[in-house]
Amino acid sequence: MTTPLAELRFDLASLAAAYAGGLSPVDVVDEVFARIEACGDAGIFISTFDRATARAAAAALGSAPDGRPLWGAPFAVKDNIDVAGAPTTAACPDFAHEATEDAVAVARLKAAGAIPVGKTNLDQFATGLVGLRSPYQPPLNAVDPALVPGGSSSGSAVAVARGLVSFALGTDTAGSGRVPAGLNNIVGLKPTVGAVPTKGVLPACRTLDCVSVFAQSVDDAYRAFAAMAGLEPSDPFSRSVRTTPIGPAPSRFRVGVPTPASRSFGGDVGAEAAFAATLEDVRALGGEVVELDFEPFFAVASLLYNGPFVAERYEAIRSFIESRGEAVHPVTRKIIESARRFDAASAFGGLYELAAMRRTLAPSLGAVDMLLVPTFPRPRTVAEVTEHPVGLNSEFGTYTNFVNLLDLCALAVPGRPRPDGLPAGVTLIAAAGADARIAAVGERLHELGGTSIGALGLPAPAAPERAPTPAPDEIEMVVVGAHLSGMALNGELTRHGGRFLRAVDTAPLYRLFALPGKVARPGLLRVGEGGSAIATEVWALPASAVGPFIAGVPSPLGFGTLVLADGSTALGFLVEPKGVEGADDITRFGGWRAYMRERAAA
Amino acid sequence: MTTPLAELRFDLASLAAAYAGGLSPVDVVDEVFARIEACGDAGIFISTFDRATARAAAAALGSAPDGRPLWGAPFAVKDNIDVAGAPTTAACPDFAHEATEDAVAVARLKAAGAIPVGKTNLDQFATGLVGLRSPYQPPLNAVDPALVPGGSSSGSAVAVARGLVSFALGTDTAGSGRVPAGLNNIVGLKPTVGAVPTKGVLPACRTLDCVSVFAQSVDDAYRAFAAMAGLEPSDPFSRSVRTTPIGPAPSRFRVGVPTPASRSFGGDVGAEAAFAATLEDVRALGGEVVELDFEPFFAVASLLYNGPFVAERYEAIRSFIESRGEAVHPVTRKIIESARRFDAASAFGGLYELAAMRRTLAPSLGAVDMLLVPTFPRPRTVAEVTEHPVGLNSEFGTYTNFVNLLDLCALAVPGRPRPDGLPAGVTLIAAAGADARIAAVGERLHELGGTSIGALGLPAPAAPERAPTPAPDEIEMVVVGAHLSGMALNGELTRHGGRFLRAVDTAPLYRLFALPGKVARPGLLRVGEGGSAIATEVWALPASAVGPFIAGVPSPLGFGTLVLADGSTALGFLVEPKGVEGADDITRFGGWRAYMRERAAA
Repeated sequence: MTTPLAELRFDLASLAAAYAGGLSPVDVVDEVFARIEACGDAGIFISTFDRATARAAAAALGSAPDGRPLWGAPFAVKDNIDVAGAPTTAACPDFAHEATEDAVAVARLKAAGAIPVGKTNLDQFATGLVGLRSPYQPPLNAVDPALVPGGSSSGSAVAVARGLVSFALGTDTAGSGRVPAGLNNIVGLKPTVGAVPTKGVLPACRTLDCVSVFAQSVDDAYRAFAAMAGLEPSDPFSRSVRTTPIGPAPSRFRVGVPTPASRSFGGDVGAEAAFAATLEDVRALGGEVVELDFEPFFAVASLLYNGPFVAERYEAIRSFIESRGEAVHPVTRKIIESARRFDAASAFGGLYELAAMRRTLAPSLGAVDMLLVPTFPRPRTVAEVTEHPVGLNSEFGTYTNFVNLLDLCALAVPGRPRPDGLPAGVTLIAAAGADARIAAVGERLHELGGTSIGALGLPAPAAPERAPTPAPDEIEMVVVGAHLSGMALNGELTRHGGRFLRAVDTAPLYRLFALPGKVARPGLLRVGEGGSAIATEVWALPASAVGPFIAGVPSPLGFGTLVLADGSTALGFLVEPKGVEGADDITRFGGWRAYMRERAAA
Repeated sequence: MTTPLAELRFDLASLAAAYAGGLSPVDVVDEVFARIEACGDAGIFISTFDRATARAAAAALGSAPDGRPLWGAPFAVKDNIDVAGAPTTAACPDFAHEATEDAVAVARLKAAGAIPVGKTNLDQFATGLVGLRSPYQPPLNAVDPALVPGGSSSGSAVAVARGLVSFALGTDTAGSGRVPAGLNNIVGLKPTVGAVPTKGVLPACRTLDCVSVFAQSVDDAYRAFAAMAGLEPSDPFSRSVRTTPIGPAPSRFRVGVPTPASRSFGGDVGAEAAFAATLEDVRALGGEVVELDFEPFFAVASLLYNGPFVAERYEAIRSFIESRGEAVHPVTRKIIESARRFDAASAFGGLYELAAMRRTLAPSLGAVDMLLVPTFPRPRTVAEVTEHPVGLNSEFGTYTNFVNLLDLCALAVPGRPRPDGLPAGVTLIAAAGADARIAAVGERLHELGGTSIGALGLPAPAAPERAPTPAPDEIEMVVVGAHLSGMALNGELTRHGGRFLRAVDTAPLYRLFALPGKVARPGLLRVGEGGSAIATEVWALPASAVGPFIAGVPSPLGFGTLVLADGSTALGFLVEPKGVEGADDITRFGGWRAYMRERAAA
């Protein structure tokens, strides 16, 4: 049973299946161009590539998949990212110049087998969250054409939402990779700052800019992200960030959400109800919801446009705006020229404020595994935004503006749908480097929400089975006590880059003790006979972090090879036999969590 | 034989010996005040503390050392650092205000038992490297009164060079903790940026400022540094930096020095010869000298005053300079007001340039263990600097200005002396966190140079014996069996970057077993009673290699905290008790090497 090409979904799994069935990348390129023409929205792309060139690139891939992770996947590129041979306009025709080199992100996607097909519309100079600030005709929202498409990566989001490409690149400084994902019911992955090099991207705020990915599923977005990530030495803002495989969602995790008093939906009860419904999904997954006062986060956000960071946007196009200011969109010009009111000293003042705020917020952020927020307070119509172009733009950024300033990663997914059919999304946010952690949870929330993808009327592609295996540069670590998920020392694992793999009992060879001392600590000891199965969790730790992790573990605890009930063995916590003298044998509880629960109840 | 108090040297070792002999801290305070009065230089201190208060603080320490690392050590504080109850002037009388709290650095020194005695003169607002930019009478250079004392920490350097106090605090943004050390033939330790909190220090450039230490020896400076270091959560620029003990100088190390073409001595052949002589000392220690083009470092330096970083100085005193500009020293005012020419956008532009330069220089810095430079090109007289106040100030910063911008630590020590008796110093520079690494080498260079300390006509205090210690990024690993030096598996340690630290027995708490199996393996087990001392070796393994190393060690071997005969504890090999069932107890051999020797002989 072969899917007719016109009905083929462009998510990576569907595409791979079709390629395995004999479809050729050239046929896919033809279909992409046909769909772009047929979709009837000339606002999505600013330019499409020459069809003959795109077909030649597709033909050059050969006729059968060669193992590259994105082989034959068509993608769109936001028009502030260079693709060699195509103009980069940043939605400002007078600013346009032909790119001579691919941006690093684009070059890496091509090297992974993906095929770029065109450059998408945006809020000019990536300044805006509405998708209307472009001299080109704005794209239509894919869910409801009365609504704004969201920006600044408007065209990329709509291209994915309408099924024209497998994925699309956006950029995200203030929320441009998240807000349009939310408004079009698709996935928007905003990686850790610096994880994807920004060389070849026209800067908005160079210290904050991220290349982002729009896709139909978390898995597809993460694959594109992983193909682009990695240190680029010639890009000073590029960093080395690990892209571990997405694992299964942990069975317990802590999620910070705004207190009701610091939640804002602009009076939209539908948006409020949808968020509350998604919170129930979080709880159903095992997430513990922790309410946090978000006012400090909103204070951070205000630095972005009301503080000196807007000067980064000015510096990015200084010579152009100083010589050709009239060629800039009037709203955009006003925002960027507002930077002139700040002197260099106040730029440093802003950096000091940010440093202080980062320090102040560190304890709240460290106390949870991730944050969950609405992607935006409420959707808005083109008419509303036309009337209030700055105020409603700011409203869209309520839950996004602080994220890059605090060096966090984020993932926007459709949450529980609203009864009225308007888009409703949520965004997971976590510490730098925790991209895989939020992807694991985001994928499940996307699935549980059941919202149709974009304009396709189709459910989210099924998530793949997540094998709980360590990556090649990780080592399995079996934890038994306070390092278990949700318990007191679990943060030591996550701080060292650990990720949950699986919960599993030991083989029935051990006894468990509660060690004497002020702090409750368990000791696991392998015994000759009379052993039991004890509940453990297996975590993957970066190999380089194992030393620092175990160096902090005090005597009489130690490490050795544990035998687990599933037949595997792994490095894990043990206790020296001398250490259990005078300790309570608590083997009968079957694990530390059960023992502690009992103790708390007693 | 008791040293008369008037002849007592105030280095920490001499002072400790005198305290052990019954001297009281109150006597020392009296002697400090007597020396200040007798020295005949009213330019060193801006204010001394009320003598009764200082005596009371000394009396409060009790009559005998209590183990605190700086017990009874008198110190001076640069007058841009707060001491509760004293005015902080920053050498600007109209700016002065009484401090209500100690700066964190001062509070930690007091907690370590040190006694502050007064506030020292400086280039106003810590802006300058000459020591003349103060409305107070400048201090006299302790080596040659015709020379400038160096700045901005002029008074602190001279106070130490004249033996008035054990050590003194400076601050260092552009070189203020190094240049005056070099000009007065003493030690100037400029720690890793952020290692010592700057809370309570009037900022110059908040992103770059460091609290620094002047002392007669590297050991004394490092002790004061170690007492002050450590994360202060309420200070956003404070970081957690490990202060490991100073070890012996390594037997081989790579030292980057400027190529002859990028070395500049302002035409002073004496300075040039002294630097060349110190390079010979480096080689004699086992250092491999690697010549580097320093032009890129000088380009970084130019950002500090000719780029937007000067705006940080403006921001630090904005309201004062805007309202009371005439109260600022005219040279200082001109420099700080030059910040007005930079807008916020160009501040970010400067940060981008710096980020790019850091990236560009990373490979050169990564290829050596440290840099070695002259502390300044050449000494200059008061007359010369009065005539060229800005140009010669810049000359002094040639080898210092780039250091904090590149997030490096530095240590200025007197090098080989010049035949003409003028001061000549060198500065070691290394990556953030490598403070102990350069201290180990700097201490030897100081000793080999043989230059008299300051104005005392005395050699550098003898350096203590240095026990081999792990570097900050290393973890100690105790090995017991085939990993011992020269034995079958020792290559696993060296392959992982391990290096031998010391041979030491365990505490008498263990038994050693020869495990059953084809391959001879020992198992070390801590026992309740009947334990013995077992021969081990302690190795230093890179922290990142510990995981890969131990992941290759099979059951029933494991790892835990070993207690050693020298009182230390470290991670090392242990065996699970289940694994010694049926094993031979070979404790009587005292170690694996002796057992294997016996076995081979049998």
